[in-house]
Amino acid sequence: MSNSRNSLFEQAAQELGFDLSEEIRIGGNYTPAIVHGGTAYVSGQVPRIGTVVAVTGRVGADVSLAQAQHAARICAVRALAILRTVLGSLDAITQALRMTVYVQSAMDFTQQSEVADAASTLLHDVLGAAGRHTRTSVGVVQLPKNAAVEVDLVVATDQPVR
Amino acid sequence: MSNSRNSLFEQAAQELGFDLSEEIRIGGNYTPAIVHGGTAYVSGQVPRIGTVVAVTGRVGADVSLAQAQHAARICAVRALAILRTVLGSLDAITQALRMTVYVQSAMDFTQQSEVADAASTLLHDVLGAAGRHTRTSVGVVQLPKNAAVEVDLVVATDQPVR
Amino acid sequence: MSNSRNSLFEQAAQELGFDLSEEIRIGGNYTPAIVHGGTAYVSGQVPRIGTVVAVTGRVGADVSLAQAQHAARICAVRALAILRTVLGSLDAITQALRMTVYVQSAMDFTQQSEVADAASTLLHDVLGAAGRHTRTSVGVVQLPKNAAVEVDLVVATDQPVR
Repeated sequence: MSNSRNSLFEQAAQELGFDLSEEIRIGGNYTPAIVHGGTAYVSGQVPRIGTVVAVTGRVGADVSLAQAQHAARICAVRALAILRTVLGSLDAITQALRMTVYVQSAMDFTQQSEVADAASTLLHDVLGAAGRHTRTSVGVVQLPKNAAVEVDLVVATDQPVR
Repeated sequence: MSNSRNSLFEQAAQELGFDLSEEIRIGGNYTPAIVHGGTAYVSGQVPRIGTVVAVTGRVGADVSLAQAQHAARICAVRALAILRTVLGSLDAITQALRMTVYVQSAMDFTQQSEVADAASTLLHDVLGAAGRHTRTSVGVVQLPKNAAVEVDLVVATDQPVR
Repeated sequence: MSNSRNSLFEQAAQELGFDLSEEIRIGGNYTPAIVHGGTAYVSGQVPRIGTVVAVTGRVGADVSLAQAQHAARICAVRALAILRTVLGSLDAITQALRMTVYVQSAMDFTQQSEVADAASTLLHDVLGAAGRHTRTSVGVVQLPKNAAVEVDLVVATDQPVR
């Protein structure tokens, strides 16, 4: 059970091109995750791999739906990578709670839910029943570093330490 | 007391054209609500009635302030309908905590707060003092299904089950 | 310790032009902050000083990065002012948890993180280690009252009353 979640995660991360030995890089004056009272908050993640934002541009114009879904998966893997580091293991996640998906959208692009579904599916695939979550997806005019997608996450955990 | 909240809700829902015998339809790979540790999270709701998004377009251009307020009320009723189903009764809400209101806005439309007030008033009307809540309202470039408004909600509950 | 946080806050507020004897004005039908179960939620704050929104316009077009950072600091001070009132003292904050920063952005402005850093730095400066927080920053098309920036905040508190 324990190995299964973490190894499903490692497989997903490798397929997306992550080097899991690298520290997750954060683009500002804040903290990747904070755990408090059984809830872990993860900062908004753009689809960065190493030092490069892998998918930039406006979805529905420069960026296709498939590319945006790829970006959403990278964001979700980053969020899980941060939780794995902070909590010690993905098994410490008892339930995903809330995911917010921001899609840098062209004026007439209305498939934000379809973009977000890629991140949701990854959560389900890695965490199983604990990957069920509530979600809000919106189309925004511009994201940091011209990222195509940004995802933040809140999960429940039985890991008390911060 | 118990009857009052649920019946105020039913009245509001009927005035907005809801068929409460229908299941709330969700447009993606996620969960309408999750309860954890006394907090219930509700996914972002667009103004869908049955299978149709009732108010689409850009507020301040195709959609008037009054139409956007109507959309905001539908979103709020959907959030409450989901909570009623998940918690068994709206009486299980001890306090509304956080509402976020996303308004699909024309470039010069600045009355996002006035749109959000319609959703806030509905919460107050149905839940009374427990309907007090914090709020963030923003204008976004595009919402899923071209919805004019999207609302998500977090509430406190004394209902422990998920 | 106690004096230090509150006095650092007062100094920051005065440098930004706040009159701390005035009540914080809210632009809608909601509540500045709600405390529940050790968590305090603060409503989205625009850079209002008294009755005037101090920084309006689109960042990257009418509003410079430096002006947007000034706006972000005002938003953060307002959030802290509300918490000081609701909790009695900023010493009741045990840990900042989540800050969301919305930047009213021109189509090609990608420095939302740099804007948000100004608010993050203010939290760190006033709260010290308890000011560590997770963050999401996004660029939105329009904010209430044409505000350049909006910031909302969630913190942990040992103050049980609401």
